[in-house]
Amino acid sequence: MILYDFLPSGNGYKVRLLLSQLGVPFKRVEINILKGESRTTGFLSKNPNGRIPILETNNGQILWESNAILFYLGAGTKFFPNDSFEQAQVMQWLFFEQYSHEPYIATSRYWISILGKADEHRQAIQEKRAPGYAALSVMEKHLTKCSFFVGDCYTIADIGLFAYTHVANQGGFELTKFPAIQAWLERVKAQPGHISILQA
Amino acid sequence: MILYDFLPSGNGYKVRLLLSQLGVPFKRVEINILKGESRTTGFLSKNPNGRIPILETNNGQILWESNAILFYLGAGTKFFPNDSFEQAQVMQWLFFEQYSHEPYIATSRYWISILGKADEHRQAIQEKRAPGYAALSVMEKHLTKCSFFVGDCYTIADIGLFAYTHVANQGGFELTKFPAIQAWLERVKAQPGHISILQA
Repeated sequence: MILYDFLPSGNGYKVRLLLSQLGVPFKRVEINILKGESRTTGFLSKNPNGRIPILETNNGQILWESNAILFYLGAGTKFFPNDSFEQAQVMQWLFFEQYSHEPYIATSRYWISILGKADEHRQAIQEKRAPGYAALSVMEKHLTKCSFFVGDCYTIADIGLFAYTHVANQGGFELTKFPAIQAWLERVKAQPGHISILQA
Repeated sequence: MILYDFLPSGNGYKVRLLLSQLGVPFKRVEINILKGESRTTGFLSKNPNGRIPILETNNGQILWESNAILFYLGAGTKFFPNDSFEQAQVMQWLFFEQYSHEPYIATSRYWISILGKADEHRQAIQEKRAPGYAALSVMEKHLTKCSFFVGDCYTIADIGLFAYTHVANQGGFELTKFPAIQAWLERVKAQPGHISILQA
């Protein structure tokens, strides 16, 4: 398999982490999104939406959207439940991640720590504070009752939410008021085969 | 089953439409989000993220996130493929819908046609034009080659993308330059059991 990826990306990291934990060998192709490499004709022929990650399977099939790739790779493994309602709960948290979490927490990190342009985006960063903390509060509330997001087992829902939550401080979000999230981050890091975000 | 819903919502409509096409009986509970009814203690005890739709199953299990509900109801029916790669492609388009389409096209419609506050949100609406049209261009490109989004069959990917695309004009998006999208909208409307967005 080939993973078109950008090392600092949490969305890319999700897939790298799952592949590592599955023990699936893959070739990583670095796409420097800061240099326009996700907007070339060649790249857009793979993903017309111009975003990493993209997974290219051994058959040459192309799949994009990080959480859809998690679903594809995770289905039928211990990282995805067997029960159909629990499967839907995994998807619920992954959609929550993309709609209510990533646009605030990941985007702030992108401006502040990837682009290094906090000043230029000061107002937009400020507007993302409240909805970002609201997403963290939803997670905190859930994690005070549960060890992991679904079925008290580590699943792709945890992988999806871990990616940008564990580097939320790089987007200016403080996790000190979220003890249940902090404890969950440690549980995720303790899973066999865990790799860090900048570990290719 | 109980569907907590808001009639003008495209996210609620997705679920209503699938339930109708599946012939599954359900009770609809209207939550007027404009009157704060999705922020009450009772509602937040069902969805801490404070959004409709919510599905409550016959067992009293609670599921939120419209596209996760589509997955739950659609899995194992003719509206979801059997092939695992095609299943992942369905999820790809549903994540695309929530990340790259809904935040621009649905949000513009909300400000303009649901709240009736186009003037107040003029600048934000303007900022959503380019990414909204970019999402429509991605869809157009795909639909020039395919009748439906995945496997040339009508699936929950089509239901998910139809919901806000067919009312994109209510958010100020013109579909005249997207003939493939227009033809696809007609194919979706022609599916057995189709209902319109304001049909409870």
